[in-house]
Parts: sequence; structure tokens; C-alpha cells
Amino acid sequence: MRQAFHTLELRTRGRGIYPVTDEVASWLAREHADAGLLTLLIQHTSASLLIQENADPTVRSDLERFFARLVRDGDPMFEHDAEGPDDMPSHVRAALTQTHLAIPVREGRMTLGTWQGIYVYEHRTSGHRRRVALHYLGE
Amino acid sequence: MRQAFHTLELRTRGRGIYPVTDEVASWLAREHADAGLLTLLIQHTSASLLIQENADPTVRSDLERFFARLVRDGDPMFEHDAEGPDDMPSHVRAALTQTHLAIPVREGRMTLGTWQGIYVYEHRTSGHRRRVALHYLGE
Amino acid sequence: MRQAFHTLELRTRGRGIYPVTDEVASWLAREHADAGLLTLLIQHTSASLLIQENADPTVRSDLERFFARLVRDGDPMFEHDAEGPDDMPSHVRAALTQTHLAIPVREGRMTLGTWQGIYVYEHRTSGHRRRVALHYLGE
Repeated sequence: MRQAFHTLELRTRGRGIYPVTDEVASWLAREHADAGLLTLLIQHTSASLLIQENADPTVRSDLERFFARLVRDGDPMFEHDAEGPDDMPSHVRAALTQTHLAIPVREGRMTLGTWQGIYVYEHRTSGHRRRVALHYLGE
Repeated sequence: MRQAFHTLELRTRGRGIYPVTDEVASWLAREHADAGLLTLLIQHTSASLLIQENADPTVRSDLERFFARLVRDGDPMFEHDAEGPDDMPSHVRAALTQTHLAIPVREGRMTLGTWQGIYVYEHRTSGHRRRVALHYLGE
Repeated sequence: MRQAFHTLELRTRGRGIYPVTDEVASWLAREHADAGLLTLLIQHTSASLLIQENADPTVRSDLERFFARLVRDGDPMFEHDAEGPDDMPSHVRAALTQTHLAIPVREGRMTLGTWQGIYVYEHRTSGHRRRVALHYLGE
């Protein structure tokens, strides 16, 4: 049993859902990860992680539209707005989605379903540099 | 330290919350899992996983009623409706709940609280065959 | 590779978001956890776990205000109210946030971002004794 650590870095171009499945799979291949457990942790509270449909891009735009309506930018209820009208909504969206994911790895592949992909969900309207800690424990 | 993998399959009868605690516990018993970490990953994006109250079934019907109101089937905001009015709402519900769970195992038992059970949440109105990847890492 | 288990207990003073980062870090230090995976599981269905902003306390009060509006206490839609108007809303809030968290540990520290803290989110209006199962697997 062994471990490996990595930090995946990406620069977002503002609010939206960014695929990272291929980068994660490449890292696992470089580490010769055959059977074990993969954990991802996004090191931010205004961006989050999602496993979602990887085929039709309207799933991602619909999801964003849903969250934009559920958590309104500039809602006067929010006190925390030092970084703008999208500041607190970003924290709420992150609380409603995932900060970490765990994915078993079997026969050298993540055990995702056919239609599943891994995404970083940027909640801020402007682009940010985002870091995701990766951890593998297995054989 | 050792690992075990399994795929739990179930056929749902449409939208609703289905208990799987006993099947998961049986698998752990068959594997003689004594102390370690259990991970569950549902391999779909229109069904999800939940740890919820296992005593009063109205908790599950109330939860469903809440989600039905929060994410309306056939909402004209959604573009992605190839599989019907419940298609995109299913993806949103999945994003708001869990695609994976991790549960420590201690002295041969999952460390769930007395009132906690593990559930598969089917979000589609018609029944589907669902697969949950199980992974155990421990002693 | 080795494992350690612990149960973190805290008594809440009613609805609100309680920091536990320091207690979790202390336990990891006592266990000389150097590199591995930490899992937390809250053993209740009316309280949950969150990784959130650790700097400005208005993030937590805004988050609570958002959830209070999204899931109304005493909503007549809810049947399950044996323990009062906050009973079912607590289960819904728990379903919308996290029952478990997984955090890689590297060089003796949790791989949290600078602004991230770990919180127990009490959803009941009165105080409760809450238990969080901790599990460490690593070196």
C-alpha cells in the first residue's frame, strides 16, 4: 500500500463549470495507480467540485442557471460583500455542492459511470487561480 | 492493510429514496471488514446517495416534497430536456445531494449513528437500474 | 500504513455553525499523523459538516440566513414535526450540506486552503450533544 500527493492547478475564466477528468486521469496513470482510493479537495470556499454529466454541455449551463436563481448575486440579505455582489453567493453555492470528492480506482481506472465527469465549479464572476489537492492511497 | 471492491446493483421503481444499509453491511460482513474505510460512489448523474433518518418514513417523503418544490419538473428555464421534464431536475437534485459517501468501519461495523441509514435517491420519475461502486480499505 | 479512530464530542448551544478545526488538528498531532487520509462523519441527521470560510464570521451568519429562508421552519408541507417546527427542516438542511468530509494530510497538516475551516452545523434551534467519528489512515 502506498500514497501519492499532487496539486492540480487551474486558472478559471470566471463563473462556470470546468472539466478536470482528463488531468486527474493523467496523474493517476503517471502514478501507476492500479487499485485504491482517490480523494480530491478544492482549497477554496468560493469554488467547489462536482461529478456531473459529461455529454451535453446544456446540463452545465442549466445547472448554472439554477444556482444563479437560487442564490441571487447582490441579495440584500447578505452582509458579507467585501469582494462584491458575487462574494457571499459563492460561499453559499460552495456549501450546496462539494468541497471534496472520493473515487475508488479499480484496474487502473476511476470507477466513474459512463456519463460522469469531474468538474471544478467556479462561483466568482471573475477568473481565479484554483488549487485542488489530490491524494491517492492504494496499490 | 487490504482492499475489496464490489458493485451493488438495484432496480428502482421511480422517484424516491431506497434503503441500502443492510446490503452494504452484508457485503462488509462477507469481506470480514473489521477496521477501515468504506467508500460508496453512485455511477449515475440522475440518482444520488444520502445518509438520512432511518426511523420515520415521513422524513423521506417530506424530503422528496421539498426537492420537488425546489427543482420543478418541466421548469422552462431548463434547456436539457431530451429525456423529459424530469431530466434536468434529476441532475440538479444530484448536484445538491451526494454522489459519494465515506464511512469509517470500526469493530466490524459502520460508524453510523443510531438513526442513520444509507439511501439511494432515485430522481427520475421512471424506474432505472442503478449501480453503486463499493470500496473497502482496511484490516 | 496504520489507522486511528476517535470520537469528537461537542455540545452545541442551538442553531449555528461551530468551528472544530483546532480540535481535529490536535487529534492528528497527538496521533503523529504525517501523511494520509482523514475522514469525518457526523453521527446525526439534524446536524451536518461544512468546510467554510474561517475569517469573517458574517459568512456563517449569512449562510444560516440563506438556509433559514430556503427551508422554512414550520412549513406546512412537512408532515414530520414530532420534535417541533425545526425538526424536518433540520433533516433537509443536513441533506443539502455534508454528513462526511475527507481531507488528505500531508507533512503533518490537513491540506486545507488558507481560508478554510471545518465546522459542525447545528440545525436544531435547541442545543444538542453531537458526535463526529474521526478516522485516520496513513503513515
